[in-house]
Amino acid sequence: MTLLNRQLYLESRPEGVPNEKNVRMRSVSLSRPGPGQVLLQNLYLSMDPAIRGWMSDKPSYMPPIALGEVVRSSTLGRVVESRHPDFQIGDIVVGLAANGWEDFSLTAGEQLDHIQPYSRFPLSHYLSVFSAVGLTPYFGVLDIGKPKQGETMLVSAAAGAVGSLAGQIAKIKGCRTVGLVGSDEKCRWIVEELGYDYAINYKTSENLAKTIAEVCPNGIDCYFDNVGGEVLDAALLNMNNFGRVVFCGAIAQYNTEQPVPGPFNYWQILARSLTVRGFISPEFKDRFGEGIEEMSTWIADGRLIFAEDIVEGLENTLDAFSRLFTGANRGKLMVKVRDPSEPAPTIEEIRAAAREPTHV
Amino acid sequence: MTLLNRQLYLESRPEGVPNEKNVRMRSVSLSRPGPGQVLLQNLYLSMDPAIRGWMSDKPSYMPPIALGEVVRSSTLGRVVESRHPDFQIGDIVVGLAANGWEDFSLTAGEQLDHIQPYSRFPLSHYLSVFSAVGLTPYFGVLDIGKPKQGETMLVSAAAGAVGSLAGQIAKIKGCRTVGLVGSDEKCRWIVEELGYDYAINYKTSENLAKTIAEVCPNGIDCYFDNVGGEVLDAALLNMNNFGRVVFCGAIAQYNTEQPVPGPFNYWQILARSLTVRGFISPEFKDRFGEGIEEMSTWIADGRLIFAEDIVEGLENTLDAFSRLFTGANRGKLMVKVRDPSEPAPTIEEIRAAAREPTHV
Repeated sequence: MTLLNRQLYLESRPEGVPNEKNVRMRSVSLSRPGPGQVLLQNLYLSMDPAIRGWMSDKPSYMPPIALGEVVRSSTLGRVVESRHPDFQIGDIVVGLAANGWEDFSLTAGEQLDHIQPYSRFPLSHYLSVFSAVGLTPYFGVLDIGKPKQGETMLVSAAAGAVGSLAGQIAKIKGCRTVGLVGSDEKCRWIVEELGYDYAINYKTSENLAKTIAEVCPNGIDCYFDNVGGEVLDAALLNMNNFGRVVFCGAIAQYNTEQPVPGPFNYWQILARSLTVRGFISPEFKDRFGEGIEEMSTWIADGRLIFAEDIVEGLENTLDAFSRLFTGANRGKLMVKVRDPSEPAPTIEEIRAAAREPTHV
Repeated sequence: MTLLNRQLYLESRPEGVPNEKNVRMRSVSLSRPGPGQVLLQNLYLSMDPAIRGWMSDKPSYMPPIALGEVVRSSTLGRVVESRHPDFQIGDIVVGLAANGWEDFSLTAGEQLDHIQPYSRFPLSHYLSVFSAVGLTPYFGVLDIGKPKQGETMLVSAAAGAVGSLAGQIAKIKGCRTVGLVGSDEKCRWIVEELGYDYAINYKTSENLAKTIAEVCPNGIDCYFDNVGGEVLDAALLNMNNFGRVVFCGAIAQYNTEQPVPGPFNYWQILARSLTVRGFISPEFKDRFGEGIEEMSTWIADGRLIFAEDIVEGLENTLDAFSRLFTGANRGKLMVKVRDPSEPAPTIEEIRAAAREPTHV
């Protein structure tokens, strides 16, 4: 049997949530690494809203995915062949936005990071809480939001992977935490399980700005924003002078092809002397070790709870991805492409199956 | 003859640029100071876009002007009667947003600041370059924008009072400065007279984002924004990663009653890891002396040029104010209510003319 690489590639640019016409599957021969490259077998794919952004052709912090290209993704995988001196067969690696929705990725070694897994945590944690999705709220809250004891921190998409951690980290730092979520069930979850002080269901609030004002009588010192749009507008009307807005995401606008206006209350940034700071986690790459170390302590102590929502099978990736935009997921959404306990292909099998090395 | 106080008061909230139905004149008896108050004769009124904001009832950093109230304004005046121990008859004072469009203002002493005029500068400078309009770009550029030698600083409304200073201050600090203005004549003025490195007429540019890109091949490190709107959108597409947006004003939206969307390119704040910081000059009140000192040196050395555009007569205030929104002014717009060389009313004249003290 010949080893094939199943790939999900971008056939056309989506309008709204991507569907099977936009993202299609093909099977191609394995490619073998050229100099400096590593061939890895993907074990887990990370489902991130940012991927939706790369599918459109508007400018962002990464170039768009070209039509015909495999959908770019962060993945966790194991090395099955290496022509980079730092990587050996069997190494577990993570590539942040460096790999793709496919069984095997061929990646420059420079774009991969080694994982030294603690045995006490599941391997998937290294693509979630110990990767961008955890390091984003860690540095976003601590270094951008700079919360002080006793301040009020508001978090949108508070039941999402990033938001659920942001609130807990702010709480550990002594803040009063208020989360915005889209269902009563999520309200209960973030308060009872995650320890948020208060939760607001923004979908059932008739006047969100007023509801926030009632729940935050002392105003908001820091708003950790994952959604943008109307929720941001409501938050801006409740910010304290010199408050900080940590601009981490704007999921509300990822699926529209129309130009999306910024907040109607943008003026409040001036009126209240606010700081709005956008960021992505690679800014703090040099300090990832520090973040993983501290969060692993919090998790081990039971102070930080992190949920994963793992879908099985590469063929279910598009379904899984679409759940990001319906609010149907609970915790960090990943696709398990292959179980880590199953054997990796041997170098002989790869040699037999693969095309000649790709020269890059 | 009885001394009367002519007042321009808010009769109705304007839509667009305020007209004579919105702002009307009345003459009232002089009021005398209650305890802690000071009666001052206004010499100059400052015409500021922010006043337009206070005329509407949307929330801002100051409460709206109530209907029937004198239009709130920063003024420079002289004390004609005082019941505050820190103020004596004849003192020259400035009240930032504390006085009004009227001949005489009755103001709490705490809201007034003494001026110790250098004789080498005209008195009006203490309501302009040595007051909010000068201290705003001074601290906005230096403390919020934090320009570094060799960086590119883009300034909107660059021929305006604030913008003309912002560019010059950035230039003094070693930046390459590019100004956005609304006429070719202003382009010439800011380059030839003020020393901007480059000027763009945003009204004749067919694609402003592209024009900025051509003029700023290394991108923008700091954008000093006085206007918001489409110009901000074009600037955001040219910001360098980790750039700073100094959010000083949004004159484009002051005259609309419709909700105004924030920048359509708000997303770029995240994509480029930008910092947007709103501010108003009182944040730096404790350091105003330092700013005045340094700017007076620059002015004396000829390194900082500041233009004033002075309209004579309280009765022409509304006309003068409307010129802020048509771009017809050149430099800081003020109304001279009374010439400093004319005599002030004596205390006997005031006693004879005034009503009893107003108790507050």
